[in-house]
Amino acid sequence: MSSPSTFNGWLGHDPSSAKGSMRWQSFTPKTFTENDIDIKISHCGICGSDIHTLRSGWGPTHYPVCVGHEIVGHVVRIGDAMKDKFQLGDRVGVGAQALSCLKPDCEECSTGNESYCSRMTGTYNGKYADGSWSKGGYADYVRVHGHFAIKIPKALKSEDAAPMMCGGITVWSPLKNNGCGPGKRVGIVGVGGLGHFGVMFAKALGADKVVAISRSRGKEADARKMGADDFIATAEDEKWERKHSRSLDLIVSTVSSPDMPLNSYLRLLRAKGTFIQVGAPEDTLPGLSAFSLIAKGCKVGGSSIGSPHEIEEMLQFVAEKDIKPWVEVRSMKTANQSIVDMEDGKARYRYVLANESANQAKL
Amino acid sequence: MSSPSTFNGWLGHDPSSAKGSMRWQSFTPKTFTENDIDIKISHCGICGSDIHTLRSGWGPTHYPVCVGHEIVGHVVRIGDAMKDKFQLGDRVGVGAQALSCLKPDCEECSTGNESYCSRMTGTYNGKYADGSWSKGGYADYVRVHGHFAIKIPKALKSEDAAPMMCGGITVWSPLKNNGCGPGKRVGIVGVGGLGHFGVMFAKALGADKVVAISRSRGKEADARKMGADDFIATAEDEKWERKHSRSLDLIVSTVSSPDMPLNSYLRLLRAKGTFIQVGAPEDTLPGLSAFSLIAKGCKVGGSSIGSPHEIEEMLQFVAEKDIKPWVEVRSMKTANQSIVDMEDGKARYRYVLANESANQAKL
Repeated sequence: MSSPSTFNGWLGHDPSSAKGSMRWQSFTPKTFTENDIDIKISHCGICGSDIHTLRSGWGPTHYPVCVGHEIVGHVVRIGDAMKDKFQLGDRVGVGAQALSCLKPDCEECSTGNESYCSRMTGTYNGKYADGSWSKGGYADYVRVHGHFAIKIPKALKSEDAAPMMCGGITVWSPLKNNGCGPGKRVGIVGVGGLGHFGVMFAKALGADKVVAISRSRGKEADARKMGADDFIATAEDEKWERKHSRSLDLIVSTVSSPDMPLNSYLRLLRAKGTFIQVGAPEDTLPGLSAFSLIAKGCKVGGSSIGSPHEIEEMLQFVAEKDIKPWVEVRSMKTANQSIVDMEDGKARYRYVLANESANQAKL
Repeated sequence: MSSPSTFNGWLGHDPSSAKGSMRWQSFTPKTFTENDIDIKISHCGICGSDIHTLRSGWGPTHYPVCVGHEIVGHVVRIGDAMKDKFQLGDRVGVGAQALSCLKPDCEECSTGNESYCSRMTGTYNGKYADGSWSKGGYADYVRVHGHFAIKIPKALKSEDAAPMMCGGITVWSPLKNNGCGPGKRVGIVGVGGLGHFGVMFAKALGADKVVAISRSRGKEADARKMGADDFIATAEDEKWERKHSRSLDLIVSTVSSPDMPLNSYLRLLRAKGTFIQVGAPEDTLPGLSAFSLIAKGCKVGGSSIGSPHEIEEMLQFVAEKDIKPWVEVRSMKTANQSIVDMEDGKARYRYVLANESANQAKL
């Protein structure tokens, strides 16, 4: 096994690429170091971040960009410093983080909070110290620091593991860090790629009650199949915020619209409850009423992906509990059409792009 | 000992009373029940809430109102159901809460979160079930449910205990509930009545570092005497939010201006840090950048006073650690001038009104 000197991937050259005009082209990856590994990509999930980045929605993107950070594939080249950790052929996943400072005196890296390191480099559109830019997983190969590649448990299919590398961990981390489990009632706002993981994880973690919260009832049947005990349709149910007032301990919001009814969501929390935003709007959130926080001792927080350790923990949990994501596998060739479909809200609930050649070779 | 059928107090009759036009008048307290006690007031602290309420700043106030919810005095009448808890002459304190539902099936009252009960009744301007309105401590007597009267440890002076009943507990509760102690670096925004307790408590709780945050350096010397290890002047220090970026685990904000630089304060937090607002602005807080929460996994929360159990715990801690609040005792007769001086920011750092007659009788 080995890797080529240039890789190939779907490159976006300007904001219009978010509408489906990426081009399959070759590019030169960052210079290989002793800490790096190369991965022959078999699968890459499509994440909302990919589209935000293609259209420069979160600030100017450095083009050309190759997006995709829900990557699964096989190790085909190993830097000397990573030879104890990996063997050629290992099946690994890479999420949204390609690097952090990893210094022993970094408060975040040294405490298992790599994803909050101020020198966090994303898996795509991130600048490396040598001036090169990270390239993601809508490609045939990816090169990353071995610390951020996680071995996939045998029980998991690659197409199921892929969307957990970002979509899954993004909801897993706040659920775990905020005590989701027996005795807690948990709401998940948004039944999409992230939300469907949120409902399944909260249920499997043993929450007393899991409530899916969406605008309409269109996804109610699906949400109940995923494990939701109740469903709130904010655009259809009258006085929903009053009816369900003080009924939840924890809400994880996966929607990324800045005009969300935040103060109404907070009414759903009981005293000392917590609302965690993980979907990142392209604008500021609505102003909070200080009273709505003070009168119930509530908190509004954010959470970003998760550390390699947390990803390992999640994958192990999913394998043990036999959780099955709702995934539609499509050919890597369909990347342009698939991001358009994704943006149109057609995914039920995550698209995963597959490289046929990689899968024929390895599966 | 006994109590009269009518009490006397400083009554505000309209919003202009906040400017110093309260009148000393008699009023009829709520009907006495088996759960009530009457307290002959010796001291009552002046809290910012008093002035917000006098001027209808938090919504329409029911006039006439008698404000004051940092009350210390002696028990002079005891309802039958409270005879096991109190003896005549006991020295007790009453804070900002006069009642909650106290039902065994109330999620908040049954879990030590009385101050977050949705049926919370304030010590003044709160409506009782019998239609009467609660009257506070700028008075000679106060009548309250015995559950919300707390015995004062002998080691504490009455004038020191009084301002802890609201100002103290309001910062004690979020410090304790968010892990203030060894290993934590804590910021206190605002060096006023609440903030001065915040600095002293955080220091006494063993925080690694206590940082006072104010607009100017005017109170720096005082803050350092209270225990601050560092001081940030947001209107004077250049690039303070960058210089002190990621340096604090917990910030408790005691200021109540809605134009506070909230997103700059959040820059001071390290990953997974927490910002708790306790000062209640009369308007909404500035819009939060979701990114500022997500990128560091931070939380913004609120906290409201504290439960009777927490007040007991605080008073015990203050007695053990021999913490001395900075208090200026004034005659109850000066109430009008004192609220004007308070609003002008002259307090260093808490005014406490004293009833001479009560003190002559008991001290």
